[in-house]
Amino acid sequence: MLSKKKRVSKLPSIEKTARDFTILDGEDYIDEIFENDMKISRSFTRFQLSEEEYEENYGRVIKSLLSTGEHKFFVAVDRYDRYLGHVWVCLKVDTVDFVPSAYIYDIETLFPGMGIGTALMERAEEWAKKKGARKISLRVDVSNPARKWYSEKGYSERAVIMEKML
Amino acid sequence: MLSKKKRVSKLPSIEKTARDFTILDGEDYIDEIFENDMKISRSFTRFQLSEEEYEENYGRVIKSLLSTGEHKFFVAVDRYDRYLGHVWVCLKVDTVDFVPSAYIYDIETLFPGMGIGTALMERAEEWAKKKGARKISLRVDVSNPARKWYSEKGYSERAVIMEKML
Repeated sequence: MLSKKKRVSKLPSIEKTARDFTILDGEDYIDEIFENDMKISRSFTRFQLSEEEYEENYGRVIKSLLSTGEHKFFVAVDRYDRYLGHVWVCLKVDTVDFVPSAYIYDIETLFPGMGIGTALMERAEEWAKKKGARKISLRVDVSNPARKWYSEKGYSERAVIMEKML
Repeated sequence: MLSKKKRVSKLPSIEKTARDFTILDGEDYIDEIFENDMKISRSFTRFQLSEEEYEENYGRVIKSLLSTGEHKFFVAVDRYDRYLGHVWVCLKVDTVDFVPSAYIYDIETLFPGMGIGTALMERAEEWAKKKGARKISLRVDVSNPARKWYSEKGYSERAVIMEKML
């Protein structure tokens, strides 16, 4: 235990190694992916939830999303295989276009501006195309600055999610 | 067979009776609902699909949507119980807000401008609220004039669906 700790502390800080990243299949990093996503996703909810309620509902959402379609994860890691970001993509029949389509459920990076998000997205698109998807979609909050980033990556606005409090 | 035909032909035309509609539980009208929806939904796809391919993919989409959440259908009928329109609403945990939430998958009416859509929507919202939903959402194409109608009904734009062809 002590020796392991020592070894870890000798690695350069992740901020310094992040720029030199690699994209890998993400299946071995599932725990880290969801741990990280659970933290980030919390900032998007517009409701006040207790920690317990949030974690329970987060688990139900993930389970429900995983229950349909074919899923694929990719991670970005540094040269010590440390997690830097991930993309979660799912293949299913689109509910509006009725063609095989890919959905990006998550695309997250701990260090923006280093090309990690772009590389993850490209890998997801490549996977989806190879699997026969005719298009790839994602959802972004109206006020999220990422909207511009997606637009630069060739995504156009197709539909709007409207909602009303009850 | 002949006598049935005769009887039907004696009813006033549906255009004349539609204004005097009632909202009912839609479960007995499921076949009519999906038959009607399958026709209407086809106009939204941006892909060229053969009849066979469309019907197969439509079936897969409906099956997949029905596989999670709690579903409810309401129909509008005239005084002869003839189908005029429907709403399909589903209760599940929202993937962004992590609270119980309702989704309107469909809201369709054969005769716009008679208040049928409004009545269906009100019934769906009432059901969702009673079931504990904290909000109700729907998706609408960016160019669909219904966007304005939803806005008048108190729905605000929360997110954008972006997509890219592959």
